[in-house]
Amino acid sequence: MAMTFVVAQGGGPTAVINQTLAGIAIEARRRYPGSKVLGARFGVRGIVKGDFVDLSELPEDLVMAIAATPSAALGSTRDKPDAAYCERILAGLDAVGADAFINIGGNDTSGTQQILKDAAGDARMTFVHAPKTIDNDLMENDHTPGFLSAAEFVAGAFLSVDLDFRSLPGIYCGIVMGRHAGFLTASSAAWRLDEESGPHLVYVPERAFERARFVEDVRSTMAAHGRCIVAISEGIASPTGRSLVEELVPAEMQERDAHGNLRLSGTDLGQAIERILAEDLPGQRARVDTFGYLPRGNIATVNENDAREAFEAGTFAVGAVEQGGGSVALQWADGKTVTRLVPLSSVAAKTRTMPADFLHPSENRLDQAAYDYFARLLPPRFEPVRPFV
Amino acid sequence: MAMTFVVAQGGGPTAVINQTLAGIAIEARRRYPGSKVLGARFGVRGIVKGDFVDLSELPEDLVMAIAATPSAALGSTRDKPDAAYCERILAGLDAVGADAFINIGGNDTSGTQQILKDAAGDARMTFVHAPKTIDNDLMENDHTPGFLSAAEFVAGAFLSVDLDFRSLPGIYCGIVMGRHAGFLTASSAAWRLDEESGPHLVYVPERAFERARFVEDVRSTMAAHGRCIVAISEGIASPTGRSLVEELVPAEMQERDAHGNLRLSGTDLGQAIERILAEDLPGQRARVDTFGYLPRGNIATVNENDAREAFEAGTFAVGAVEQGGGSVALQWADGKTVTRLVPLSSVAAKTRTMPADFLHPSENRLDQAAYDYFARLLPPRFEPVRPFV
Repeated sequence: MAMTFVVAQGGGPTAVINQTLAGIAIEARRRYPGSKVLGARFGVRGIVKGDFVDLSELPEDLVMAIAATPSAALGSTRDKPDAAYCERILAGLDAVGADAFINIGGNDTSGTQQILKDAAGDARMTFVHAPKTIDNDLMENDHTPGFLSAAEFVAGAFLSVDLDFRSLPGIYCGIVMGRHAGFLTASSAAWRLDEESGPHLVYVPERAFERARFVEDVRSTMAAHGRCIVAISEGIASPTGRSLVEELVPAEMQERDAHGNLRLSGTDLGQAIERILAEDLPGQRARVDTFGYLPRGNIATVNENDAREAFEAGTFAVGAVEQGGGSVALQWADGKTVTRLVPLSSVAAKTRTMPADFLHPSENRLDQAAYDYFARLLPPRFEPVRPFV
Repeated sequence: MAMTFVVAQGGGPTAVINQTLAGIAIEARRRYPGSKVLGARFGVRGIVKGDFVDLSELPEDLVMAIAATPSAALGSTRDKPDAAYCERILAGLDAVGADAFINIGGNDTSGTQQILKDAAGDARMTFVHAPKTIDNDLMENDHTPGFLSAAEFVAGAFLSVDLDFRSLPGIYCGIVMGRHAGFLTASSAAWRLDEESGPHLVYVPERAFERARFVEDVRSTMAAHGRCIVAISEGIASPTGRSLVEELVPAEMQERDAHGNLRLSGTDLGQAIERILAEDLPGQRARVDTFGYLPRGNIATVNENDAREAFEAGTFAVGAVEQGGGSVALQWADGKTVTRLVPLSSVAAKTRTMPADFLHPSENRLDQAAYDYFARLLPPRFEPVRPFV
């Protein structure tokens, strides 16, 4: 039975989001010969504008070359549909005779699918959410497509910076993306050479950040190791629960997207950390980098398992249409990743944070459960040796 | 004839500086069986303290594993020897009966070798400088060991960020290491997909940075391409010739090393760029990342040619001892890289900046000579395809 699929990509792109797109395009033509697969440019905006790319007729080798290219090939959006916008999207889907709309994205995108499904009411068409986020913060998922590649960047960067600061000692802080969940920041420890290696300190949104404690942590790490490597999530919050960036940036310079998310990426937090270190630990060599956009779609650190799982999430999403739609989830069972269909409502607009046992109960560092998680998902890709210093 | 070599590593580490160390260790034992190769820990400091690692007896597979590990395995230093320090280094070299001292590093390190040679006077021992710097700023060199790996990081990062900002349009600025020479910043353009791809604007220390011109450049790029990807050297200077960081950072917070170099790495410049964009182009989505330490010893982007050439610079340095010492240089002749020995004085404490024809005469972007340079040194490692947006 030939069908018409509309597919879109939402939110921040990843290194493997096009694998999912490719999985959808290839599985749709395989499972339903003669089907149309229309890619909406710039997410739901493309549906409203009738701005589509026909993916049905592309040669398979071109589709696979697109799959291997990071970032959303169709373009993305951060638009959040209200009731009126919803009607326009549904009208746009009707206009092309869509049987199913598969939206690839994170929790905001799954929220969009839930809103559209509710607005569509009856069985007008099927809505599927295919997962994608470097934040690894989708409910029902063990890990999410896009995360492992970003994590591989962060793991390699911290391994490398730790070696750098062994040779020229000092304090290093890397600010890593992550609004509510610390998974990506925690991946900084995935490729530690040994117990003595950095990151020595990890600050994540799941635990309040306190200046005095931070300074004391750094001071004692310097005393113990002669260097101090720190991973900090851009979303860390003060004990009041407000994000540090919100407290640091003047209200008139704060920027929010349609989902109400405050812009966290930027140099504000890094500068604040730099000032704290200069004031409270004067005379110490201290360096702060903002990783920002570097991990999320980096072509140099595409993880093979991530690419494969992202492709499979796409093929699974096509199969999910016959089951009435929902959210595709990567779960862990019997020692491997399994792809399952879960209700949209269990994922939509919710956020998964790190399990409590990922963090040491009293120190600002990871605990064994986190190391175990990364050991099974992100085994070391390199074999550096301990230097003489 | 058995000899005693002392070897040290100086300045900022690179991804392949241990290749050079390994080349020295292996060539010394091959060419002069029974020789001693003593590695000084933390550069010349190790010589003064008598703190050495004996590299002579290490198994060859361990030496090669060290070679493949980024950052200075012996530790590094930014110490600059004055007359008294010099005497202590020479005494330290005498104490272990050194016939030759090979120091791996950049222009400050070559300066150290020159100072030591002058202080030693007669043929007391031989001084060799083996090149290393991600800045690519050594005189007499076509390119330097360490540069291509760092450049590969920057090239891949900008390729990836350009794709990211195609899908979610806006302004992106990446601040890249580089005090006086813009080579590493220029490598941002090495893997451009096509003429329309970022980086659209490149600001380097070789050309004065003017705020009004920068804002106008960004505005017109946004109008032309709908996005604007910018590569900025941390060492950019105002028309007065002072570095922007020096103008931005309060004097009491400025930090200098023993060579008088102002600390440029940090968030100050990024924050200033962010403020300029917020003030002069309000309402535009703009993001600034500081690459900082991420490119320089990154294990994920070790360039194969770079690794090989760095190893060969080490083997060549051992052979250079019989020729009376000097500075090892990578030159370009007959369509390939050749390693030659040049006088220390032609490299020591000098800085090579980008050839004038690397920059477009009137626009803040690269010109054909730069593209040609990167095409021969850093051919694309990936084959992404143009997205639909």
